[in-house]
Amino acid sequence: MQHTITITGLEVVDVRFPTSEEAHGSDAMHTDPDYSAAYVTLTTDQPNLAGFGLTFTLGRGTELCVSAIELLAESIVGRRLRDIVRRFGISCREIANDSQLRWLGPEKGVVHLATAGLLNAVWDLWARAEDKPLWKLVCDMPPQQVVDCIDFRYLGNALTQAEALAILEANESTKSEREVEMLRTGFPAYTTSAGWLGYSDDQIRQLCRVALAEGWHHFKLKVGANVGDDRRRAAIIREEIGPNRKLMIDANQRWEVDEAIEWVNALAEYDIWWIEEPTSPDDVVGHAAIAKAVAPIGVATGEQCQNRVMFKQLMQLDAISFCQIDSCRLGSVNEILAVMLLAKKHGVPVCPHAGGVGLCEYVSHLVMIDYIRIAASLEDRVGEFVDHLHEHFVHPAIVRDGHYHPPIHPGYSAEMFHSSIGKYQYPNGPVWAAKDSS
Amino acid sequence: MQHTITITGLEVVDVRFPTSEEAHGSDAMHTDPDYSAAYVTLTTDQPNLAGFGLTFTLGRGTELCVSAIELLAESIVGRRLRDIVRRFGISCREIANDSQLRWLGPEKGVVHLATAGLLNAVWDLWARAEDKPLWKLVCDMPPQQVVDCIDFRYLGNALTQAEALAILEANESTKSEREVEMLRTGFPAYTTSAGWLGYSDDQIRQLCRVALAEGWHHFKLKVGANVGDDRRRAAIIREEIGPNRKLMIDANQRWEVDEAIEWVNALAEYDIWWIEEPTSPDDVVGHAAIAKAVAPIGVATGEQCQNRVMFKQLMQLDAISFCQIDSCRLGSVNEILAVMLLAKKHGVPVCPHAGGVGLCEYVSHLVMIDYIRIAASLEDRVGEFVDHLHEHFVHPAIVRDGHYHPPIHPGYSAEMFHSSIGKYQYPNGPVWAAKDSS
Repeated sequence: MQHTITITGLEVVDVRFPTSEEAHGSDAMHTDPDYSAAYVTLTTDQPNLAGFGLTFTLGRGTELCVSAIELLAESIVGRRLRDIVRRFGISCREIANDSQLRWLGPEKGVVHLATAGLLNAVWDLWARAEDKPLWKLVCDMPPQQVVDCIDFRYLGNALTQAEALAILEANESTKSEREVEMLRTGFPAYTTSAGWLGYSDDQIRQLCRVALAEGWHHFKLKVGANVGDDRRRAAIIREEIGPNRKLMIDANQRWEVDEAIEWVNALAEYDIWWIEEPTSPDDVVGHAAIAKAVAPIGVATGEQCQNRVMFKQLMQLDAISFCQIDSCRLGSVNEILAVMLLAKKHGVPVCPHAGGVGLCEYVSHLVMIDYIRIAASLEDRVGEFVDHLHEHFVHPAIVRDGHYHPPIHPGYSAEMFHSSIGKYQYPNGPVWAAKDSS
Repeated sequence: MQHTITITGLEVVDVRFPTSEEAHGSDAMHTDPDYSAAYVTLTTDQPNLAGFGLTFTLGRGTELCVSAIELLAESIVGRRLRDIVRRFGISCREIANDSQLRWLGPEKGVVHLATAGLLNAVWDLWARAEDKPLWKLVCDMPPQQVVDCIDFRYLGNALTQAEALAILEANESTKSEREVEMLRTGFPAYTTSAGWLGYSDDQIRQLCRVALAEGWHHFKLKVGANVGDDRRRAAIIREEIGPNRKLMIDANQRWEVDEAIEWVNALAEYDIWWIEEPTSPDDVVGHAAIAKAVAPIGVATGEQCQNRVMFKQLMQLDAISFCQIDSCRLGSVNEILAVMLLAKKHGVPVCPHAGGVGLCEYVSHLVMIDYIRIAASLEDRVGEFVDHLHEHFVHPAIVRDGHYHPPIHPGYSAEMFHSSIGKYQYPNGPVWAAKDSS
């Protein structure tokens, strides 16, 4: 790396896409999302070198993330990139423990989403400075350097630094084989398109056939409004996809613990692979009770799991069979590495959450890191993909034949086109200004 | 209540006190707090009737809470007070589940702190409209009305509405006796003044003697920097206070789980009543392990416990012996009632966190509600009190002879003097403007 790169400035923009108009991505809890982002640009003292990152939001409140990023960035701007990333785990701890901002979390909610957006931009900058895609930057690091990127605070009783190092070292001699494999075939993806709550039976049947024709192997049904409807729709999907493809259900946190157990068991005959977000994302103990009662159906959660301490507990209590990290809710690649290592140690496959804005772009790097360096297995692993809003990204995720393929351009892939930012900037971009005047 | 009261407007002010200059309240994690508040005024269409509330912060980032309150208030302003509070639990659920803002929590961090500030002002307004102190308003409600103030979502496997109602009904015939008792003797308090980390041995000894002379019975020592120092200081305090008064220790989240167990056991010989915040506030499973390993020393936590779902789990796993609710972190009186009822069912005493700005004022109501209506016991119960910043409140908490006494003025006691708000408003009040120019 050029040792002299200094971060000289920060710009954060509130970008919102009016997706609620077409109810894209609506679910039981989030009925009218406007997929949005607090979009970060870190400028440097080098010509043509900047870092781009984002944190994903649903519209209202994006400005809170923008303001929080500006506050957190005071500890980043003016520093040399090298000094931040050399002991990156310590830098993360310093950011998470700003002695005044800490009270607003700690490490959760707006402040932690903002941490993700800011550090995502730092990682992008680092990868660009090294002229590598982010996944390749991480895959090429010596094991100790990966460990040094992580703040292990509060993980001591579940994953030590020595254990993390041992996982990375055990994979070292075979990682290049897996890299070649990923470049050739990619990482399995699934798409959440057939089973949204608002669709009619005929629509579901039709969408199943389209998805089958496109080569998808996993099908997700949104459930939780009415158990009779859910049974009927699950039967339709199972009939369409046959016995060998995977059917998952997603309750978007609708249920009480006991209700979840009853409801999931009422759908068990349709051979359910996982039940996603059965109840409150905060209820580790509840997830453990559900997991025990609905096995062999696996519990999946994580898109609203606030930090590594919660994931630690989900694994300690055998509460999840699938770990759905979110690239903008956890504190960037640093905390994601911690959770991936925890998951490896506990034998839980990581199946990242995606969709929204930019999440697929991030996930296309993260699944590579997990497979090549940490998990070293594809068993029960699949990354979410939603084919939406990618046209705004300079280097969109590459998904072919139902697989994520490794990004090829330097950076972490969240750079958006100037034209998109200008058009969708809130509240003054033309898309929103027109709404205000209409 | 006057049925026609309509909330017509909202004002939120960022008020900061430069307490970091004198290191008041500094601890291991929060080294330079400027005790602050997002201060809410709800105006109405009635002459001389407004609601005042706040959420407590540590300085930087208060503006995030201000903005979040403004966003959340869109669902409050313009509505009739009666329509909000009639089924107050449902109103809480609607606020917590704004379909776009929810992603920023849910029910945690900045958005939930903001919910507390906003709803604290609604409760103040309601109590003023009824011409009663808040504690009296709640104590006079029929049991079903108290239950209707609570959003029971995600509590189903730990506390049903029927169980909550039964607790309230069982206390109904004796509550007036306890009210008389509180008016006469008050609720036991403790003060955190003797054992701050930065003090010398002589200072600690001296402060113990002062506190003993003032009639305090509970003494708290900040620990976690050095086990040898902690042992020496614990010995000093125990020597000064004798065998019959309570000694608590507070680690402010410094430790890993295993480290906490070792450290606490190394102090056990000084007869420790509770260990407060031994590790991450998110680590329910870790607290349970610590509780088991350090018994009979009790684990206390809660000032950074984000919501009722976390408290539920702390109780389900027998992880805490003392429940330290925070009046501005939980979603106002509504969620506090839920946690008090959970605690009653699980046999855990509620010992509220206080200090900061306005927390003691709130706690002076909350301990009354808990004792008179819910816990109906004083055993192992004590409310924190710090004698600081009360001069800014129109009706400060009444603490005499080591006891909180019931507030006597209508409302929830967080109204601040105009002169204080003007002086400490950030960044334009004279206290802060002078700093900028100095």
